[in-house]
Amino acid sequence: MNARRVGIVGAGQLGRMLALAGYPLGIESRFVGDGPTSPAGRVAPIRAAALDDRAALTALASEVDVLTFEIENVSIPVLSEVAKRVAVFPPPAIVAIAQDRLAEKQLFESLSIPTAPYVVVDSRADLERVGNALGWPLVLKARRLGYDGRGQRVAKSIEALLAGWDELGRVPAIVEGWVDFERELSLIAVRGAGGTQAYYPLTENVHRNGILVSSIAPYVDAGPQRTAERWLGELMARFDYRGVLTVEFFLTSAGLVANEIAPRVHNSGHWTIEGAETSQFENHLRAVLGWPLGAVGVRGHAAMLNLLGHVPDSATILSIPGAHLHDYGKEPRPGRKVGHCTLLDPARDRLLARLELLRTAIERAN
Amino acid sequence: MNARRVGIVGAGQLGRMLALAGYPLGIESRFVGDGPTSPAGRVAPIRAAALDDRAALTALASEVDVLTFEIENVSIPVLSEVAKRVAVFPPPAIVAIAQDRLAEKQLFESLSIPTAPYVVVDSRADLERVGNALGWPLVLKARRLGYDGRGQRVAKSIEALLAGWDELGRVPAIVEGWVDFERELSLIAVRGAGGTQAYYPLTENVHRNGILVSSIAPYVDAGPQRTAERWLGELMARFDYRGVLTVEFFLTSAGLVANEIAPRVHNSGHWTIEGAETSQFENHLRAVLGWPLGAVGVRGHAAMLNLLGHVPDSATILSIPGAHLHDYGKEPRPGRKVGHCTLLDPARDRLLARLELLRTAIERAN
Repeated sequence: MNARRVGIVGAGQLGRMLALAGYPLGIESRFVGDGPTSPAGRVAPIRAAALDDRAALTALASEVDVLTFEIENVSIPVLSEVAKRVAVFPPPAIVAIAQDRLAEKQLFESLSIPTAPYVVVDSRADLERVGNALGWPLVLKARRLGYDGRGQRVAKSIEALLAGWDELGRVPAIVEGWVDFERELSLIAVRGAGGTQAYYPLTENVHRNGILVSSIAPYVDAGPQRTAERWLGELMARFDYRGVLTVEFFLTSAGLVANEIAPRVHNSGHWTIEGAETSQFENHLRAVLGWPLGAVGVRGHAAMLNLLGHVPDSATILSIPGAHLHDYGKEPRPGRKVGHCTLLDPARDRLLARLELLRTAIERAN
Repeated sequence: MNARRVGIVGAGQLGRMLALAGYPLGIESRFVGDGPTSPAGRVAPIRAAALDDRAALTALASEVDVLTFEIENVSIPVLSEVAKRVAVFPPPAIVAIAQDRLAEKQLFESLSIPTAPYVVVDSRADLERVGNALGWPLVLKARRLGYDGRGQRVAKSIEALLAGWDELGRVPAIVEGWVDFERELSLIAVRGAGGTQAYYPLTENVHRNGILVSSIAPYVDAGPQRTAERWLGELMARFDYRGVLTVEFFLTSAGLVANEIAPRVHNSGHWTIEGAETSQFENHLRAVLGWPLGAVGVRGHAAMLNLLGHVPDSATILSIPGAHLHDYGKEPRPGRKVGHCTLLDPARDRLLARLELLRTAIERAN
């Protein structure tokens, strides 16, 4: 028994899949989060507490070998304080950046990673100027606490932009010029002790209303892979990163444009559970524990389809040959990510046909 | 959320892997067994109780959708009583047979499945006659409660046979003629609602002192597969079986000879976690819940190596590319099954070479 305990802040599906990846390795995860009926709380011990609850995180830190998180909206002061008691990975410094759209932009710029042009807005007057600077449409993004399309508004006119800012509560924000992208891709990297690294293949993602709908990997054109790997390698080295790091990109006619970083396992990497030799979840745990990283070779082509709102009757999905179901144990709610399915196939065209079958079966069951 | 609850009797590593296979499907397992530090108790709710504790099993039955077991040494009277309250799969009738070497022999005979010649022994006088009937060496097997080589003695003389019977406590037994086998194979089948069936490929097993050491799948010669599938199909149909069924065979120059049945998931099927599209654990759960069975296609060649005594330092195993570790969360004890490793490779010869590397690394770490 190699018993190791990992503390995880946040108890959603990412935490759940981390815990489930850990058990076979003898790793027991313990959580701070929503409580025993949360996705992670259903599979591992949990303290019901807010993610910035100093006492809960301190108690968790005292009983684990390393502390990590499944969400970037954690309290940096609390995390930094806890980091004095137990190793915390990924480094809180990069989490602070991922929490702030402006800091994220500046990080990309400092590493010469292309990103959409932007303007910082703190006032109505700032907003009134951005249309001239960047053209239309524009994307308004609150600087803090945005994910799954929350805290964002696409505006095609100054009126819409001002209304959007009102809706966001007139918070500090940035406005981005529109990126005319062909595709959305993400790269999932993992960096372990001593700077060892591994990169999954670029994944192609489809979003709807800011929420990830499906992912397909590997992306067909290996060209951008090298570029993206170089960028993530430099980014991770700067922070002496440990764990999984995800960067979302737009692919434009001029190449990759970085959109967002997530210092954690990522929805666009769920296909790695069945589709790669070692999943992003297992590799994140190996990295934060200082264990050797696992091989990231892929098993043919993989597609991941998010289940939104509710999980269809299990027979609907399980009767499709080779469909792998992941039910997060959540109560149904419109638009909520409640599970996902993964399909694998050696041939990409056959995979895409089967993905359509799966999509149709799920829609018909709804 | 498709929340289903499965009750599982027995809380060892098989139960643990069932629970871990269930979570992604939204299946929550609950156990009766050794308690919270047992392999299954570390990953799911458990009632600490003996496996024949009527009150504990009745309570478990009242809160689950279906009841199953990870071990055949359960109490048939208790299981049959519980079966009046909740569906119990596999059927208790076949479990009763798997508990009794004589009944097992008679089952094989009734289905015309070849098995080693045998004699029933209840007395010293019986023992003194068997050498003449079956030749030497002989295998003495207690009729009840044998697994992992326990309750068995190989005897090369009448003196050894009598001494062996004394050691076993002079219990009712059978004596088998020696089977001159080339290899040991096992077939793992699964049968679902409505008689749907799926068969994993024959697995080649290596035992030492009656304990499984390693398995390699698929077995190179597809010839015996059809025969074995036909036998298991007939056997399962007779009991209207639901769940995973394993039969261990000897491969002799005259073909397959059935050795033992296990009405449950089996150590020789652990490679299916990574090596097959759907693992034996997931398929057992699907079958007992009446869900569609999962595809059993294999991913190249797979090898499984049991970890006996203690789990080596995680880096020892995890630094071998593509080695998958399963640590059961058990305290070390000489000879105890505490975990296993799985390797996959598209090429069988390369797989065997890597298996030797892994074996050497583990031995060197001990």
